[in-house]
Amino acid sequence: MSLTAVFESLKKAQSLLALQNRAQKDAALLAAADAIGAQREAILAANKSDVEKARAAGMKEALIDRLLLHDRRVDSMIDGIKTVAALDDPAGKIKSGWKTPAGLLIEQLAVPLGVVAIIYESRPNVTADAFALAYKAGCAILLRGSSAALESNRAITAAVRAGLASAGGVSGAVSLAGSGNRLEIDEIISARGYIDAALPRGGRELISRVVENARVPVIQTGEGNCHIDVDESAGVDRAVKIIANAKLQKPGACNAVETVLVHRKILSAFMPPLAADLAGRCELRCDAASKAAISGAEETPPSALVVKDAAEEDWSEEFLDFILAVKTVDSADEAIGHINRYGTRHSEAILTNDLAAAEDFCNRVDAACVYINASTRFTDGGEFGFGAELGISTQKFHARGPMGLEALTTIKYRIRGQGQIRE
Amino acid sequence: MSLTAVFESLKKAQSLLALQNRAQKDAALLAAADAIGAQREAILAANKSDVEKARAAGMKEALIDRLLLHDRRVDSMIDGIKTVAALDDPAGKIKSGWKTPAGLLIEQLAVPLGVVAIIYESRPNVTADAFALAYKAGCAILLRGSSAALESNRAITAAVRAGLASAGGVSGAVSLAGSGNRLEIDEIISARGYIDAALPRGGRELISRVVENARVPVIQTGEGNCHIDVDESAGVDRAVKIIANAKLQKPGACNAVETVLVHRKILSAFMPPLAADLAGRCELRCDAASKAAISGAEETPPSALVVKDAAEEDWSEEFLDFILAVKTVDSADEAIGHINRYGTRHSEAILTNDLAAAEDFCNRVDAACVYINASTRFTDGGEFGFGAELGISTQKFHARGPMGLEALTTIKYRIRGQGQIRE
Repeated sequence: MSLTAVFESLKKAQSLLALQNRAQKDAALLAAADAIGAQREAILAANKSDVEKARAAGMKEALIDRLLLHDRRVDSMIDGIKTVAALDDPAGKIKSGWKTPAGLLIEQLAVPLGVVAIIYESRPNVTADAFALAYKAGCAILLRGSSAALESNRAITAAVRAGLASAGGVSGAVSLAGSGNRLEIDEIISARGYIDAALPRGGRELISRVVENARVPVIQTGEGNCHIDVDESAGVDRAVKIIANAKLQKPGACNAVETVLVHRKILSAFMPPLAADLAGRCELRCDAASKAAISGAEETPPSALVVKDAAEEDWSEEFLDFILAVKTVDSADEAIGHINRYGTRHSEAILTNDLAAAEDFCNRVDAACVYINASTRFTDGGEFGFGAELGISTQKFHARGPMGLEALTTIKYRIRGQGQIRE
Repeated sequence: MSLTAVFESLKKAQSLLALQNRAQKDAALLAAADAIGAQREAILAANKSDVEKARAAGMKEALIDRLLLHDRRVDSMIDGIKTVAALDDPAGKIKSGWKTPAGLLIEQLAVPLGVVAIIYESRPNVTADAFALAYKAGCAILLRGSSAALESNRAITAAVRAGLASAGGVSGAVSLAGSGNRLEIDEIISARGYIDAALPRGGRELISRVVENARVPVIQTGEGNCHIDVDESAGVDRAVKIIANAKLQKPGACNAVETVLVHRKILSAFMPPLAADLAGRCELRCDAASKAAISGAEETPPSALVVKDAAEEDWSEEFLDFILAVKTVDSADEAIGHINRYGTRHSEAILTNDLAAAEDFCNRVDAACVYINASTRFTDGGEFGFGAELGISTQKFHARGPMGLEALTTIKYRIRGQGQIRE
């Protein structure tokens, strides 16, 4: 089937899915979850074949691990679909309503966004997650996974479609783009009139490629060069604890902190305990003043501590690793200026007990999430209470920050009259 | 100044404007309105020069009329700015807020979208309107009008900036891209990182060019191939009155009706009165059955009536003229299928007394606005009660339907903790 035929078919399926009520959609989702369980052996066998091919082609073990499925991961796919089934239906809500002077009753309704395409890298569990979110929102979805995961994705999609069909669902609302040809991505992200939004999920290169070349609307996610600004009133112990959490709890996450900004007045009080806490757990890349505050302290720094000199490029780098950059600032203005220059508009925190400083930071820092006295690691659909997460948008258009099901909706105005004409 | 320098300067001005409160923004807007009044002579002189050049270059009189300013039009620009000043501030609203299990207080705030670019054709009043909406929302704006209106736009922008400066406003938040070079548009719509949204306003060619080539988010507006579906239970007199209004009140508007769909069962009752009402006021382009229903009627059709045979391309055409296409349908399914195939997702109406038919139409027609028993001409920010209108979005992403100030906002999450770390 040509991609255009796939687009047409998804569009038609979406118009049917949009008419299903919540009970129908939930029943179909649960049947899809059951079908993944029932076809577990076939899915694991397909995955085994993908993994063998990837190993033979020399894929690194870290990436093999992302590709690999096992019983626990299959269970987690099943649970994920069930969690989404339990969420409220985002479509059909009346968001607002009013009567106009002409007597028209206007209702603003949430409706499904339409046909969405997700372009993602090797983790096959994304196939099940993305399908479930789209289906719940009433959107048809085109899945474009990596060629390395093709057999796994085919097996998962086949199970999902069989499950949907068994429960009166709209099995045509999920489709896998499977040629493995990179040009396919260009065709998908150019399909105006068919694809209502494209969502790249993966590394920086994939996301840039989609964002730069798309003709359809894109939701840009995932890049997080996050900062924590340590104000002079921060309180040293609490600040160290928050920074350690934001850096170490999951350094590969986009909401992990990458650079700490420290006000000059508290350098000598703050840097030695920070260094002591992170020694052996995380490399520091310090500017001259923050480095001097460690080496000039009364107590000798722990032998496990690694401190390097920060270079200009460290301010722009999303390390995604056990590395933390430290920069000294002379004022709140300088801290905010640094964040607005180098940040990726993701998650930014100030640690302070100064009310005016906290308000100023929140007002002036341009980011999806601004924190006062908490770890940046909380930027997450689950932590926010959205139940499931489509990703974290770092753009301002359509969706920003952790995206739940609502990001997969748009609005529609329903206007009821009794013969009104415009004078 | 290079365009990049203009972008930088707008970005900086926007960060200042975002901190102004409503009273400050309103005072600056009113001062800008006054400055337009004070510089009326200079603006009219600049416009006279534009008009003379355009006439000498052979511009058609209809377009000259769009370009032309006179006292009443200047008054209307001034009133428009005052109207916007009187609207609620869309930025700063707390849209929702909740406490998470970890004890974080999360607030979802409306904040300005950022720097917006408007690319428009010759009407110089758009310069003042767009500035006012953007400024009120806390957005900086790059105005890119047509070269034909360059002197007028310069004079208006100079007045606005002088007015802003006189009242402590942020005069750098409005800038005119003035080279007149068409390549300038490409540079604007490629400026990722500087321009948060581009809004093309004008003819189909301009809009397509922006939509097809943009690298920044675009809000697509204005194309309206709108339908009215006349159900067998519609009620003939009311239906004729609504259709006449939707076609004739302002045929050049995007919310005017272009095609009427008539159910076969009421053809003979409905077509003769429709033809009688529109005779001499509007040309009909009918399919065979609807034409036969006119010619086969007992009463002879009025001599002023012009009925032509509809061609396939008439179903796709936005006439923007005194022309109405008429198509016979055998079912609600056929009507909805026709609309979803040929419509531009703008405004679609059903005239009916059948509750199930009305609900089915609203659920299944994919458009920004779906009407029951009212004229499509009501799709308008003013009629909706938004006070001012940025345009009518025909896309599903970010904004849909009549756009008020809210379309110029995005969200920001403010999260307050007391030292929370993620477990």
